[in-house]
Amino acid sequence: MLGKEKIKRIKSLEYKKFRDELGLFIAEGEKLAGEILKSNIQIESLFCLPDAILPNHNVKAEIISENEMKRISLLKTPSKAFIIAQIPHKKINFSQINNSLNIVLDDIQDPGNLGTIIRLCDWFGIGNIICSPKTADCFSPKSVQSTMGAICRVNVFYADLNDFLNTVAKNITVYGTFLDGENIYTAKLLQQGLIIMGNEGKGISHETEKYVTKKLHIPCFSNNAVKAESLNVSVATAIICSEFKRRFL
Amino acid sequence: MLGKEKIKRIKSLEYKKFRDELGLFIAEGEKLAGEILKSNIQIESLFCLPDAILPNHNVKAEIISENEMKRISLLKTPSKAFIIAQIPHKKINFSQINNSLNIVLDDIQDPGNLGTIIRLCDWFGIGNIICSPKTADCFSPKSVQSTMGAICRVNVFYADLNDFLNTVAKNITVYGTFLDGENIYTAKLLQQGLIIMGNEGKGISHETEKYVTKKLHIPCFSNNAVKAESLNVSVATAIICSEFKRRFL
Repeated sequence: MLGKEKIKRIKSLEYKKFRDELGLFIAEGEKLAGEILKSNIQIESLFCLPDAILPNHNVKAEIISENEMKRISLLKTPSKAFIIAQIPHKKINFSQINNSLNIVLDDIQDPGNLGTIIRLCDWFGIGNIICSPKTADCFSPKSVQSTMGAICRVNVFYADLNDFLNTVAKNITVYGTFLDGENIYTAKLLQQGLIIMGNEGKGISHETEKYVTKKLHIPCFSNNAVKAESLNVSVATAIICSEFKRRFL
Repeated sequence: MLGKEKIKRIKSLEYKKFRDELGLFIAEGEKLAGEILKSNIQIESLFCLPDAILPNHNVKAEIISENEMKRISLLKTPSKAFIIAQIPHKKINFSQINNSLNIVLDDIQDPGNLGTIIRLCDWFGIGNIICSPKTADCFSPKSVQSTMGAICRVNVFYADLNDFLNTVAKNITVYGTFLDGENIYTAKLLQQGLIIMGNEGKGISHETEKYVTKKLHIPCFSNNAVKAESLNVSVATAIICSEFKRRFL
């Protein structure tokens, strides 16, 4: 049985303040719970409906009623599995960063966009994402949900971008998209580097721009009189990652 | 002044039933309102705060208070401009379809995904999207919002896919993504064709699959022991469109 106090504590994890305080995050749904159960992430609690289908695991599940699930769920349609897990703490591995392709997020606001970017990084074998402190929290319920489990496999770090870029930018090419950048489809691209993606409205900040050593541009193919305005940031990230990765198939 | 009845009517446009009945949709925000004002879409009403910034137009604006805007807005943070516009009715131009690249959506459920796909089609100069009847409504407030104005420039049709594909599939290559498809980065791609994108959970339905003449696959670059699961449908659409378009730069 889930008591009032317990439900209140669970619900508090919707907010960053309490996630930080407790070092915990929540994840809902059989698929997402399954991914977390298969990962190295430490689980505090696993709540299930009697008919939930999950992969083999050795976590003690607490069977709850549909009504109880409704009370703790943040989803419109509550699912059959609900996990409370520990936020993992990892350290940036600089030598790994120097020898691979990485994504840097400069104030991405929308947790859905962030989650989608984490998911596509997983697909493209990009293991590290470095986020500015103002970027959305990757452990917010909406972000975790949008990663579809990729949060278990991709390392997401929060760091002052000035400090981070000061440390690594000398050794590696720093890419960023700008209106006056080189056509990404014909530009020379390397297997290692940092790809900076800017804020949904403002793009890459001036502070961060100064570290960019190679400006890129995704050309617009619209032939409308009024040209298409822009691409959603997760869509732009996907196009860029796809283009980098296909070169070294 | 916005009376109770007027507000109720406006609010009803959140629901498809009433959009269909009244033939109207809503769009919020200065940017989105600006795009609609610049387009051929017929506007029924334009509500503005006194300090809204909009492009030149000849629509009579009704200045309302911040409080009134709050009452009609569906956004968490109400904006300064709110439009009620007529849902345009266009007919599929089959000869145009036969001579271009087009997107077919087989039950895309999420209005945000749909809006993002409309926006990226605008970017890639893809003028026609044909949706199965069960695909989300492109004139739902969330979809319109996600298009960022692209809804004014891209033609979105709803049709029985069986009927539609029966009519056009003989003359044109029909592409679809499948696990056993050809690597999209090396497959031969044509400038004309239909690209079918499937439902978020189930992919392309069996009914629709039979029309696919060229199966494609976006390769996964993850080197994790547990492989990345999938890509978000709007991200997958972006990668595919990017790959088609770059070939004919």
